[in-house]
Amino acid sequence: MRAEFHTQLAELREQLAEMCDLAVAALRSAGKAVLQGDVELARQVLAADAELDRARDRCEESAQQLLALQAPVARDLRLVLTALYCANKLERMGDLAAHVADTARLAYPDRLVPAELEGEFAELGRIAADMAQRLAGFIRDPERCCFAELEETDRAVDALHADLMRTITADHWAHGVATATSLALLGRYYERFADQTVSAARRLDFAVTGEIPAA
Amino acid sequence: MRAEFHTQLAELREQLAEMCDLAVAALRSAGKAVLQGDVELARQVLAADAELDRARDRCEESAQQLLALQAPVARDLRLVLTALYCANKLERMGDLAAHVADTARLAYPDRLVPAELEGEFAELGRIAADMAQRLAGFIRDPERCCFAELEETDRAVDALHADLMRTITADHWAHGVATATSLALLGRYYERFADQTVSAARRLDFAVTGEIPAA
Repeated sequence: MRAEFHTQLAELREQLAEMCDLAVAALRSAGKAVLQGDVELARQVLAADAELDRARDRCEESAQQLLALQAPVARDLRLVLTALYCANKLERMGDLAAHVADTARLAYPDRLVPAELEGEFAELGRIAADMAQRLAGFIRDPERCCFAELEETDRAVDALHADLMRTITADHWAHGVATATSLALLGRYYERFADQTVSAARRLDFAVTGEIPAA
Repeated sequence: MRAEFHTQLAELREQLAEMCDLAVAALRSAGKAVLQGDVELARQVLAADAELDRARDRCEESAQQLLALQAPVARDLRLVLTALYCANKLERMGDLAAHVADTARLAYPDRLVPAELEGEFAELGRIAADMAQRLAGFIRDPERCCFAELEETDRAVDALHADLMRTITADHWAHGVATATSLALLGRYYERFADQTVSAARRLDFAVTGEIPAA
């Protein structure tokens, strides 16, 4: 019974890690679509989001079966509940990547990001996607969970995001109000994406140690 | 055992409903703080958010105990997992209300919302808070779940939000870029708050019927 539980839990963990891989790929493509004004790539990201939704549903079914058939307790129960929590965070990360892609689609045939901000948005997208990639590693091997490491990176994301907001709202901003508001929302999608990876990592840490790390 | 389960489930449901009441109160106060430039009220909302975080933790502990001690299956299991899902949505609703309050705090001593948009923001806040209030009713009595009703109201929120975005980004916008970006984010907080109520109601519907309603 316990061996079977651990086999099923390992399968559930792999399902989650694959969701995380999809979210990483979606955010990288969405960022490229935004910076290069690639509407075809944006449409692909938008279409692919349904796959993450289905993957979340499958994770939830797997977790529910595990709970119903194996009635885990203590650490095992925490691991299954953490998987459920993470599945919803990962699905949300997919939504946010889709929002980034939709920003590219709505701006087309124009490019939204002014040349002088391309570097900062590229950096924001790269850091957020890298955080999710590290999260996938921790999902596959929860003993190596790096919540503290992701939280520190998230502070860099917040600083970059705050810097972008200052630039966008400065008196000498030359690209108009519509661009500014779209860029403010775009920045927020990245910042929220990064936040979700931290929340998921905090839970993984909790599942392993039994203690929720301080925020 | 089953009677005990249902007593504990009813307690968990009441904990959730109280979380929802807190989120409603937080959003109403935050909206008032923003429209009236009331920084003291904004600070109260920001301080009160920690209470919702603690309430979420308590709900999670209750749900985990229920799972560990009672090992529910089928509909009972769905009800407990739904409670866990809703606890996290309600905590997020509290965060969004806090973001609204923080918008008022950051604008102080100015008022952020221009006179001609006060009516629309008041309406957006009122509808979103009313949706959460209806959600509290459904949490208390899940047989009466009104997912379809909330989803329809959410379409009105989306339309109002889209209308606001058009106004803010119009060529003849007279209030500057910084105000426009803050208002775009403010609109998004309300829209996301309303979305969370729909997601929670969808899950309650699922818990009762065993089928996830179409999005």
